[in-house]
Amino acid sequence: MSRPDAMVHLDGRLVAAGEARIDPADRGLLLGDGLFETLLALDGRLVDWEAHWVRLGTSAAALGIPPPADDLAAAARETLAANGLARGRAALRLTLTRGPGARGLLPPEAPRPTVMIAASQSPEPEKAPLRAIVATTRRNRRSPLSRLKTLNYLDSVLARREAAERGADDALLLNEDGRLACATAANLFVVRGGRLLTPPPEEGVLPGIVRRVVLRLAAGQGLPAEERALSPEDLTGVEEAFVTNSLIGLRALGMLDGTPVGGGGQGPVVGVLRRAYQDYVDPD
Amino acid sequence: MSRPDAMVHLDGRLVAAGEARIDPADRGLLLGDGLFETLLALDGRLVDWEAHWVRLGTSAAALGIPPPADDLAAAARETLAANGLARGRAALRLTLTRGPGARGLLPPEAPRPTVMIAASQSPEPEKAPLRAIVATTRRNRRSPLSRLKTLNYLDSVLARREAAERGADDALLLNEDGRLACATAANLFVVRGGRLLTPPPEEGVLPGIVRRVVLRLAAGQGLPAEERALSPEDLTGVEEAFVTNSLIGLRALGMLDGTPVGGGGQGPVVGVLRRAYQDYVDPD
Repeated sequence: MSRPDAMVHLDGRLVAAGEARIDPADRGLLLGDGLFETLLALDGRLVDWEAHWVRLGTSAAALGIPPPADDLAAAARETLAANGLARGRAALRLTLTRGPGARGLLPPEAPRPTVMIAASQSPEPEKAPLRAIVATTRRNRRSPLSRLKTLNYLDSVLARREAAERGADDALLLNEDGRLACATAANLFVVRGGRLLTPPPEEGVLPGIVRRVVLRLAAGQGLPAEERALSPEDLTGVEEAFVTNSLIGLRALGMLDGTPVGGGGQGPVVGVLRRAYQDYVDPD
Repeated sequence: MSRPDAMVHLDGRLVAAGEARIDPADRGLLLGDGLFETLLALDGRLVDWEAHWVRLGTSAAALGIPPPADDLAAAARETLAANGLARGRAALRLTLTRGPGARGLLPPEAPRPTVMIAASQSPEPEKAPLRAIVATTRRNRRSPLSRLKTLNYLDSVLARREAAERGADDALLLNEDGRLACATAANLFVVRGGRLLTPPPEEGVLPGIVRRVVLRLAAGQGLPAEERALSPEDLTGVEEAFVTNSLIGLRALGMLDGTPVGGGGQGPVVGVLRRAYQDYVDPD
């Protein structure tokens, strides 16, 4: 459902989305054998490009997928421009797959990875506090994939569908041990006893780029911050809670399974951190 | 890495693999939002087509993906013929994705699923007992995906890579609770105390088509068979163990992490069941 006039950057060149061709033998399609990054572009500026690029490279190394040889920042900017998105707010998605392969699970000895960059307009993020449910499906903290942004995203799709069916905006996922991990595509933070807490990667959590920035900004605001395992019961006693990702920045979590979280609105700490993040992203 | 002269059946028509085009916005590629089936064809005959077709349909319903309207058996046979595989042993793969979609996790309201059938020659399965390791990564029995054959196959890819790196043929995956689930693309059976045992789907196991047939054949051979949760320690005391899938049929598990399983070779029960399965698949 790419707009037919959209342009994607595929394996080194810009091509009309309606003509861009993914090989039916691509292991990204057949086995979910690949990774992606989603990032924000503001007036053509790639927010935290370096951090996304480094994460893509280290994740590719973990899977044994050869990372792109050249930095793709220029290609990303070209993709924005080709889609009339050099101004305003845009979402960029970089997809890296192991490329086409013969039948079977074992990767080819000399993979020819597929590299794709797509851009789309990104609306201003919703400001109303998030209403979430706890998803039925779970994160798998005992799989290394739970800490990588891989193409195996169907658990999150199921959880988001479940949220929509229950009239909520999003879902929180517990890990297999019943502790809080994250939202379907966002990290989770709580403020409790004046401290900022977020589950560590070992809990089955992607180490998000905004998550890391927020932990740093909190320190700058004199707010003690730490990674800590959290149970769903821990949410009942919190002052505030919020989620983060590259497109929404920070958004207050107002409601979980129909029960208000903290005061149910955007609390003061989220407010301060949102402004600090806003300044970080867009200093002008 | 489709052979350029191979033909695939894509969205209702046969097309050269080198020209077949998957939309870069296909959710199968971007999110692993889809399913597949692998089956054996012998001289153009689709082994257990009905069972695979029913599983694809019920799995699609579980994910809310509209299943193909018409039975694709004829299309599968056409794909075999177009690839010169109407004779001999061939592997067929049916892939069903939710099709292209706009950015984001929530499925489109009116999905246009992608349906693809690919065929390739399938060598006679290896007869030597399998040497396996226990994979580092785990199955997630608390996700419904562990009981569906989805495109989220990267845990199995990692496990197979790990096996290859350690000089083994395949890997067994434990679930998050440390009990035995399956091999990377096969079900697991053990013979213990004269009984045939296999972990139930609740353990994070795909209910395999051959698995079901073998349970039935065992009964016909006077061999008591049941689904039962198994720990890795249970393997030390077994008489025999084997794995099953549509392409290999039954194959003895001879070695796990360097230690012989049962007698280390193909035991008598596996032998009997292999012959029974052979007769089932190819009665002539």
